[in-house]
Amino acid sequence: MSRYLNQRFRTLDAYTPGEQPKDTVYTKLNTNESPYPPGPETQKAVCSRETAQRLRLYSDPDSVRLKDAIADRYGVGKSNVFVSNGSDDILNFAFMAFAEDGAVFPDITYGFYPVFGDLHQVNYTQIPLREDFTLNPEDYKGRGGMIVIANPNAPTGLEIRQEDIADLCAFDPDHVVLIDEAYVDFGGTSAIPLTKEYENLLVVQTFSKSRSLAGARLGYAIASETLIGDLERIKYSTNPYNVNSITAAAGVAAIGEDDYYSANCLRTMSVREWTTVELEKAGFQVIPSIANFVFAKSDRIDGGTLYRKLKERKILIRHFDNPRITQYNRITIGTQEEMERLMAAIREILREEESI
Amino acid sequence: MSRYLNQRFRTLDAYTPGEQPKDTVYTKLNTNESPYPPGPETQKAVCSRETAQRLRLYSDPDSVRLKDAIADRYGVGKSNVFVSNGSDDILNFAFMAFAEDGAVFPDITYGFYPVFGDLHQVNYTQIPLREDFTLNPEDYKGRGGMIVIANPNAPTGLEIRQEDIADLCAFDPDHVVLIDEAYVDFGGTSAIPLTKEYENLLVVQTFSKSRSLAGARLGYAIASETLIGDLERIKYSTNPYNVNSITAAAGVAAIGEDDYYSANCLRTMSVREWTTVELEKAGFQVIPSIANFVFAKSDRIDGGTLYRKLKERKILIRHFDNPRITQYNRITIGTQEEMERLMAAIREILREEESI
Repeated sequence: MSRYLNQRFRTLDAYTPGEQPKDTVYTKLNTNESPYPPGPETQKAVCSRETAQRLRLYSDPDSVRLKDAIADRYGVGKSNVFVSNGSDDILNFAFMAFAEDGAVFPDITYGFYPVFGDLHQVNYTQIPLREDFTLNPEDYKGRGGMIVIANPNAPTGLEIRQEDIADLCAFDPDHVVLIDEAYVDFGGTSAIPLTKEYENLLVVQTFSKSRSLAGARLGYAIASETLIGDLERIKYSTNPYNVNSITAAAGVAAIGEDDYYSANCLRTMSVREWTTVELEKAGFQVIPSIANFVFAKSDRIDGGTLYRKLKERKILIRHFDNPRITQYNRITIGTQEEMERLMAAIREILREEESI
Repeated sequence: MSRYLNQRFRTLDAYTPGEQPKDTVYTKLNTNESPYPPGPETQKAVCSRETAQRLRLYSDPDSVRLKDAIADRYGVGKSNVFVSNGSDDILNFAFMAFAEDGAVFPDITYGFYPVFGDLHQVNYTQIPLREDFTLNPEDYKGRGGMIVIANPNAPTGLEIRQEDIADLCAFDPDHVVLIDEAYVDFGGTSAIPLTKEYENLLVVQTFSKSRSLAGARLGYAIASETLIGDLERIKYSTNPYNVNSITAAAGVAAIGEDDYYSANCLRTMSVREWTTVELEKAGFQVIPSIANFVFAKSDRIDGGTLYRKLKERKILIRHFDNPRITQYNRITIGTQEEMERLMAAIREILREEESI
């Protein structure tokens, strides 16, 4: 750190993304990417000579075509849609814009929330999930700040009911309720319909998981026109051309081939069920996930040990340092073949461990 | 604005980008884009099926290949390079990170600086340029905050000397001197060599102008390892995957075909000289620009009137509301053909005005 850095950032603990090894020999089950490539139309949109030539021009700061496509897809108006350079951008803006009275989120959830909180000097509270990692909505009432809930939650894969979201929005209409739906497309239920009823509900989604576009960086929010207007104000005060034109074109094409991506989500859900059964057969406790990952632990092996031994075998999964979940690992659902490779490696590791 | 928005952003005046009309019939001389498409290798990098398929994976948060290419190009180390989603991102981070004691910049310069200042509640001072729009470096001494100078400056196209930059860095080693070199490649001199000498010098450049990649969003900073480390800390606390993988690939390819882009810069400089002479023939006073635009006014026509009458003729130039420069317009240097069209339209407008 330099001596020039603003005092308020000197103690900042930045977010640590999952490992992104530069070689390609790993089976990557650590950052919840899709194992399937972008759809043919999406690839065509990216590989278009016309798009490449138009790169000399700035992208559309209003992202009109992209917003229209998203608005049509979800049955909302264009002015209810905000787009950004990945959904982290939106979360960052929300902590900046809507957390003046603080923020509340679970103790076990997306690890970036406390980082945004620290960055913007938000007075935040991390509320422990129940012993079984379920969330008690009552815990979030009367806290007086922005409520942030990943639904389904990561790394657990558990969701809360839409009635509970509606109830939280109605209970404190003076504060924003942010529902982070990065993983909603693998069997979850979206709160987007509720945005028509609750002015304070901000739903955030991404093209990174179900739409195979993690590397293109594209997130979006759906909410009341007033909340979207606030996000636009922040965007126009930081980076008006925040979405590049190739990504915008890819996003429009991806919305246009929803069937391709829905079929992939169904595949992932089916591989997830297979993986869950196999892990349970191998003695793991698996949280019943509705996301594109499972969260599992076993009494037969320490969580950190399993992570390291799989890494030695060129398979990456995600292990978190948080003591409450140190016995667990989060495992992204890859292809059936990748998960078979994982299970074979796990069985081998367990045999080795138990023969010592 | 919603009632949820943080108080500190309620009076925020966001930045107004140049018009980006959705139809394509305009001759666009208003946002300093390159009139030439990205080079063949850059286009190939964008239109690669392999890149498109790899979009399912997150981009490299360390942008190793891109940083290496930029570092090699400018003779610095990888740890002296920061990359971002457009150079506005870097300016935003710099105002956030390095302006705790305030900031100083000219009254006539890039209009985004005061927006960043307001956004981050920076106590900033706008120092009037001299009558002829030149900058007196002495005015920036002893102000006690971050110094921000666009060099060459926009919208004037004038530059300050490298000795003056070195002098400012040495005069106050306790504060950052940010040199915004968005327009340096059209005849200016870069302060990058000085970054080896001055720990507090932050040089910001972009792929948007000389490298025809405005729509791809790619900016970079070159500075001491400590300043770059601070920017990385802010990045990892807001948006670790801030540069998407197609843009990163385009950036590497663009660095690889420097000759193509240098030739375009020379063309632009030559068209700029032609345009300057023609404008002067038509009675304009033209500031001697070394950027890819000229800044001009004429006693024969009001600045706002010229802007509007050209727009009626489907030619867009940039007019600013600032009273000090209301007689001026900033005109991007397009192709020779575009500038001939511009001059024909200007002569026609002047004839019309004078026959009333």
